[in-house]
Amino acid sequence: MARDERGVTPQSEDFSSWYNELVTKAQLVERGPAKGTMVIRPYGYRVWELLQAELDRRIKDTGHENAYFPLFIPESYLKREAEHVEGFSPELAVVTHAGGKELEEPLVVRPTSETVIGEMMARWVSSYRDLPLLLNQWANVVRWELRPRMFLRTTEFLWQEGHTAHADEADAMRETLQMLAVYEEVARDIAAIPVVPGEKTPGERFAGAVRTFTIEGMMRDGKALQSGTSHYLGTNFAEAFGIQFSNDAGQLELCHTTSWGMSTRMIGGVIMTHGDDKGLVLPPRLAPYQVVIVPIARGDQGEAVLAAVRGLAARLKDAGIRVHVDDRPQVSPGFKFNDWELRGVPLRLEIGPRDLAAGTALLARRLGHEGKTAIRLEDAPEVLKQELEDFQTFLVQRATEFRESRTRTVDTWPEFTDAVASGWARALHCGRPECEDEIKAETAATPRCIPLAGAADSGTCVRCDAPSAYGKRVLFGRAY
Amino acid sequence: MARDERGVTPQSEDFSSWYNELVTKAQLVERGPAKGTMVIRPYGYRVWELLQAELDRRIKDTGHENAYFPLFIPESYLKREAEHVEGFSPELAVVTHAGGKELEEPLVVRPTSETVIGEMMARWVSSYRDLPLLLNQWANVVRWELRPRMFLRTTEFLWQEGHTAHADEADAMRETLQMLAVYEEVARDIAAIPVVPGEKTPGERFAGAVRTFTIEGMMRDGKALQSGTSHYLGTNFAEAFGIQFSNDAGQLELCHTTSWGMSTRMIGGVIMTHGDDKGLVLPPRLAPYQVVIVPIARGDQGEAVLAAVRGLAARLKDAGIRVHVDDRPQVSPGFKFNDWELRGVPLRLEIGPRDLAAGTALLARRLGHEGKTAIRLEDAPEVLKQELEDFQTFLVQRATEFRESRTRTVDTWPEFTDAVASGWARALHCGRPECEDEIKAETAATPRCIPLAGAADSGTCVRCDAPSAYGKRVLFGRAY
Ligand SMILES: [Zn+2]
Ligand SMILES: [Zn+2]
Repeated sequence: MARDERGVTPQSEDFSSWYNELVTKAQLVERGPAKGTMVIRPYGYRVWELLQAELDRRIKDTGHENAYFPLFIPESYLKREAEHVEGFSPELAVVTHAGGKELEEPLVVRPTSETVIGEMMARWVSSYRDLPLLLNQWANVVRWELRPRMFLRTTEFLWQEGHTAHADEADAMRETLQMLAVYEEVARDIAAIPVVPGEKTPGERFAGAVRTFTIEGMMRDGKALQSGTSHYLGTNFAEAFGIQFSNDAGQLELCHTTSWGMSTRMIGGVIMTHGDDKGLVLPPRLAPYQVVIVPIARGDQGEAVLAAVRGLAARLKDAGIRVHVDDRPQVSPGFKFNDWELRGVPLRLEIGPRDLAAGTALLARRLGHEGKTAIRLEDAPEVLKQELEDFQTFLVQRATEFRESRTRTVDTWPEFTDAVASGWARALHCGRPECEDEIKAETAATPRCIPLAGAADSGTCVRCDAPSAYGKRVLFGRAY
Repeated sequence: MARDERGVTPQSEDFSSWYNELVTKAQLVERGPAKGTMVIRPYGYRVWELLQAELDRRIKDTGHENAYFPLFIPESYLKREAEHVEGFSPELAVVTHAGGKELEEPLVVRPTSETVIGEMMARWVSSYRDLPLLLNQWANVVRWELRPRMFLRTTEFLWQEGHTAHADEADAMRETLQMLAVYEEVARDIAAIPVVPGEKTPGERFAGAVRTFTIEGMMRDGKALQSGTSHYLGTNFAEAFGIQFSNDAGQLELCHTTSWGMSTRMIGGVIMTHGDDKGLVLPPRLAPYQVVIVPIARGDQGEAVLAAVRGLAARLKDAGIRVHVDDRPQVSPGFKFNDWELRGVPLRLEIGPRDLAAGTALLARRLGHEGKTAIRLEDAPEVLKQELEDFQTFLVQRATEFRESRTRTVDTWPEFTDAVASGWARALHCGRPECEDEIKAETAATPRCIPLAGAADSGTCVRCDAPSAYGKRVLFGRAY
């Protein structure tokens, strides 16, 4: 297949190469000098900022306050919660020297902040009146990666981590599910990723959690991407760090805590949910540029067209549209069209001298419509706003249909292996970790979640014929 | 002097104890477990978020784009620019182990990102058409501190660091001064700190810079706080990292680069510029709560008053005022008054049953007015908006007058030592580093800057009688 220097391997040919080439060529990200780290370039970082703003608003609207906790955690802190240290040990980066000396106690670069926040919560909580304590932080975290993949698995990534303390299990579980719902909403309404919310099986839980919930999105290769998690930590961390309160009868009780996080991984999710052979497709609500205008004229006419284009861009900006004028003199319109398609801009306007004379522009949509439509310059702001909304809706519908077409309810092992080869399987499972391991060894599929919305169902395990667990079907798939 | 448990040592008695006690008691910050680190609590972090939003908007309005660069920098990168490595070596924190192994090359936790960004700029810049390259990042950085002081000098702090590349010195210098002006504006108009912009003397330059500019604020103990810096780096980093471009004649040239940063140190500046014996005084534009309403009633009347207060709070919120209702049942109104004075809330409203019946509330201002004023509930949103603006203006005027009253133009050594004992001295100086060192050894004062606005002046050095340098007076003071 022919492709110019800026093109990428078609998605349909090799999904993995397509992804790796695209993230770089679309100028989203680059490898950093230290193993597994990434440089998030302005175009990629703007996607993150737009997502962040939407998520941050919802985190605040649900009563949480932002704070900031230290990057460095004394090694001994991680060891206080047994499962937690076991889960993270192989991934830790450790500072042993600082200020020109060897440190007495090594400092771990935070892989997540449950431990240091637990220590602080223990100081801040004393009475039931201090509860619930609802905190969030935006931060970088480090988990050493041997097989890094930009946005999806990197040694350093950016995220928010929420940490809350409650008087009892019921309140902590309400919080855990509330934040899962926030993640589901942001994924669906902002990133146009129709995720499935559900609970992880015991084998897939977060290190130290009593219950772990997740939202799972289906990528265009049929694999699952865990896109956000919310954990009920029970009293595990409260016990390890002494987070206790006196209740209204004056008795000391342990707090019930939660934690929940969403990260720059979501950018990878956006790329793999919507992208195609031509490159990125960005949902309008996360697109750094929602509309790109390409002036098409040279010489004398060029000046007049460019002036009109700038005027239009100003009007679109005033209407709240993120617009960019591509006035590069050194490249052709054709090059620009390909470039902005590769970079996933939802809408493109082309304006030449004849369009200008007619008071129109040609509108091309990145996806969902063949050909171009003439629109009146006069109406452009309203027309484009509507087009952007339609494009956002179109993407989430397309992704939902794709997910449904690749998800099958299966009752036999051959059906199961067939389903997970190209997508997801809804199956009954015995719940035994060994059985999960066998399934993974044979098919590479793992239990993604027990969907919250799943109907009651029971019978025998799709793999081993033992009685099924959970009272509903489990969603299986291969995952990132 | 009597003080309750929540009170602090009066500022006038011991400025340093006042500061250290206040930052904790006002719930802005706490010591983190690793040496010199800080936990920024929600009340302190909100101040940072408000400052960030104002600065970020201006950084974007001047054409810069945000990006994100890795936390870990290979040790060898820092060594490429000789002055830079020398400047930072003793402050570095180093990761030697990761992923369960000893690393082949140790990784430095970024003390600043000139080197890693230089490496990336070299990849991204090839033609004059790629210039200027205008980047910024919001990040945490680490500089090991032996004598930490919350917000002012901490092992880890938060900041933004701008990094730009230009075709020539003139353009890079325009950028350097433009960003200094942005810092001056944010300090003055948002933080109400009337800083003095100027250039650092050679001895006070950033490691690797050709010229360093600063904004200096005067704290209420007469000391200076360097509150933001902007550096013209010449071609030093471009040479070390190979940042070059082909000009329009097709010849390769080195870029001229700049960097500039403002940090969480500014929160310390706000505290020390405006605070008093009673505690914090926050400028309205950075106050998490601009208005606190204290309902004053118990029992049956309590319900009615609280309902009215909530209604008023909703109206104020709709008017864009950050308002908080202190409805804690377990503490007295008097305790609340002291508490919110300590925490620096600009305006307080008190409402009891009689106020309610009269359709009024009592307004108390944190500073600048004795006594309380009755305001009509009906007009509250407009009246309070105006009061907040007046309060902001009052703070910057008060700080300007204070700075002027403590700054003296001096020509003799006794005048100099007298001036820097309680404030700043404007003096002629020879420019010799050894002379700067002697002045520092004897008075603890250092050259803060050569003010941009200083009038032409020359003569002999205030200390050594050698001919003066710089063509103007230098501002000297003790500093944080
Ligand atoms: Zn089974
Ligand atoms: Zn001298």
